[in-house]
Amino acid sequence: MSALPTLDEDMEQGLSEAASDGLAGPAVRRARAWLSRAAEPGSVAFWRFVDDVGPVEAVRRLRSGRAPDVVRALVGARAGQDASLADLLRAERCDARLVVPEDDEWPAHLLHCLTLATGEEPDDPRHQSSRATAPVPPLALWVRGPARLDELADRSVAIVGARASTAYGEHVAGELGHQLGERGWTVVSGGAFGIDAAAHRGALAADVPTVAVLACGVDRAYPAAHGALFHRITESGLLVSEWPPGAAPLKHRFLVRNRLIAALTQGTVVVEAAARSGAQATARRAQKLGRQVMVVPGPVTSAMSVGCHELLRDPELGAVLVADAAHVVETVGRLGEDLAAPPERATGPRDGLSDLAVRVLDACPVRNGVSPERLARVAGCDVLDVLRVLPVLELADLVEATDAGWRLARGARAGEGRGVTAGEQTA
Amino acid sequence: MSALPTLDEDMEQGLSEAASDGLAGPAVRRARAWLSRAAEPGSVAFWRFVDDVGPVEAVRRLRSGRAPDVVRALVGARAGQDASLADLLRAERCDARLVVPEDDEWPAHLLHCLTLATGEEPDDPRHQSSRATAPVPPLALWVRGPARLDELADRSVAIVGARASTAYGEHVAGELGHQLGERGWTVVSGGAFGIDAAAHRGALAADVPTVAVLACGVDRAYPAAHGALFHRITESGLLVSEWPPGAAPLKHRFLVRNRLIAALTQGTVVVEAAARSGAQATARRAQKLGRQVMVVPGPVTSAMSVGCHELLRDPELGAVLVADAAHVVETVGRLGEDLAAPPERATGPRDGLSDLAVRVLDACPVRNGVSPERLARVAGCDVLDVLRVLPVLELADLVEATDAGWRLARGARAGEGRGVTAGEQTA
Repeated sequence: MSALPTLDEDMEQGLSEAASDGLAGPAVRRARAWLSRAAEPGSVAFWRFVDDVGPVEAVRRLRSGRAPDVVRALVGARAGQDASLADLLRAERCDARLVVPEDDEWPAHLLHCLTLATGEEPDDPRHQSSRATAPVPPLALWVRGPARLDELADRSVAIVGARASTAYGEHVAGELGHQLGERGWTVVSGGAFGIDAAAHRGALAADVPTVAVLACGVDRAYPAAHGALFHRITESGLLVSEWPPGAAPLKHRFLVRNRLIAALTQGTVVVEAAARSGAQATARRAQKLGRQVMVVPGPVTSAMSVGCHELLRDPELGAVLVADAAHVVETVGRLGEDLAAPPERATGPRDGLSDLAVRVLDACPVRNGVSPERLARVAGCDVLDVLRVLPVLELADLVEATDAGWRLARGARAGEGRGVTAGEQTA
Repeated sequence: MSALPTLDEDMEQGLSEAASDGLAGPAVRRARAWLSRAAEPGSVAFWRFVDDVGPVEAVRRLRSGRAPDVVRALVGARAGQDASLADLLRAERCDARLVVPEDDEWPAHLLHCLTLATGEEPDDPRHQSSRATAPVPPLALWVRGPARLDELADRSVAIVGARASTAYGEHVAGELGHQLGERGWTVVSGGAFGIDAAAHRGALAADVPTVAVLACGVDRAYPAAHGALFHRITESGLLVSEWPPGAAPLKHRFLVRNRLIAALTQGTVVVEAAARSGAQATARRAQKLGRQVMVVPGPVTSAMSVGCHELLRDPELGAVLVADAAHVVETVGRLGEDLAAPPERATGPRDGLSDLAVRVLDACPVRNGVSPERLARVAGCDVLDVLRVLPVLELADLVEATDAGWRLARGARAGEGRGVTAGEQTA
């Protein structure tokens, strides 16, 4: 058995390593493993530092004390420690792995809403959102289970709600989980007691994978009573966490975790929520990320539906009342159906785009990129709609992100001729 | 005992009679009593005919065969019959009376929405709305009970819903009726089994008057099992009907009746409704009349809440989810609170107007009246908002209706100087 390379040796090598087969190189993965233990996720300043210099260089600077003071303060004494290889090995022992932004499996277009939202944060760290509310992308995700994260997230809905749920709420969450699963949608939730567990179990009963995003290591069962549930989830679906193996479910981590449940899904369904509850906060965060918020009503005599009704009464939230899985699919499926023309019938990249998508596309400049806010003004729609449409346009190679913002992709510019052809067909 | 005057004698006299003490003259009342039996309510053509020539002349022409064919066809052989005096006497025997538009008690500003909506109906009777859906004002109202109709209706909310209600729905309707009563709001409903009865009973339990708008004569108990309920209602509140005493509760009359429940109230609350139910139709009619539609949600597992959730999912309806009486008062009370400045503090007629009311007022031309739609465009608001605000502005003598539409009232034009004074106070 050869001696394992030290972290610093790996980082020196990593400066020149290249990705292959859609997988990040080993140094990049080790760097992100180290970073995921070095600082608590959710810090705007820390994420920006890593984004600016790259993960390998970020580790080098933190290890050698050359990172900015604000960033060094977030790491503290952990700069001198290294459990990265141990964490990766510990993950491997429980069939988990670290998925990083450099991997093809990274759910890039869904998490892009966090990148955009973080771009709106002020420069001065003192004025940035706290970790509990900051819309910061994850630096890496520890993932346990046989499924591919990007594939499951691609067509997924979050079901969240009260831990102290009623039999009514659990019944509805279970039915939703089951019916969404049967319709080919992945249920994402937090693995907690109550609504979360009922939603996961409903999906499992439909024999489809489900995703639990945890606030502790993917090798820990929290709550402990859910050990068997988590085991069943990892047979076909995924446990996901920003925290390395062994990490404890500290209270503040649940708030930080909640943004991921919203970001990793097309929309969030709140099944039961008490007044001024965490589920309400999750719903509001989902809305801020441009995700559709859906709410299941209940008896007005039930304290566990008060929060749901508050959400439905808030005109600014724009939450949609949903009573069954068909309503949910109608809400989150709209974009996909509108955008996705059957491939065999498509004659050009713009064909099959929704009216909204076409307006956003037409608002994109050819040369200098502009902000989503600017696009919203030009397209005459809401900025949230723009944020929802841009990732899909990007996936279709119609738009591209530059440092200055969004602009038409080369392909879309070249494709204008084809657009005329398509137009002639209808003339 | 002197001989009673014949209908035709009374009509000859009535041509020159004047109202006194806020009450219509006897000939006008008798004319409207006769008209209320001569044709089924809800016909656009019939209402326009009476509105054009006045009730006394309308009776004369119908009796002598000089009315337009369309109108004569609606009356048929009843033109030669007369039970008007008998109906008025029969009403008197059960402490009922006929309230007519010429009386002060007539709820003129609430029913004005029907006049406006009828104005939108086409001229050709073949293209006019059917009686089941036409927004026609009543020609007269048979009213039984000690309260004044205009005073009860002035601050009232309709509570409607399924007859085949659940224990949940009846509990909520009863609580709403009780709590709205305690807050000084009159509950108006249809006296039917289920939600209607629960709402009336809730109000009665709070010892406040309630109004049942019936689809049969006010001397009849339908459903028969509600005899005792109707008796209790008439001790403090009112039974109201467009049909003369003795009229039977024919099926189509309930549809015609429903528009009155919506028009006579500030807003309509739907408590339970099956899919595609009558309560839904009532809610949609209320919205078309510019009334606020409020909906109580329920378990998504209950068939009796499916209609409620359909209403809440309809973005065009703009229904507000309400879970308790405070929500209802917040919704329907807003206009009143916004518009009604305490009289002792008012320094000019425009003071205390809501932002919406001021915008509509400012949109009114000085000389030639314009349509509510035109006002909505100029004021930059919804036509339903305009229809809601106009009656209040008219009551405050700020606007007046002309044949061509709405314009500033003389008082409002003269009052502009006072508006400046009020403005200077804040400068």
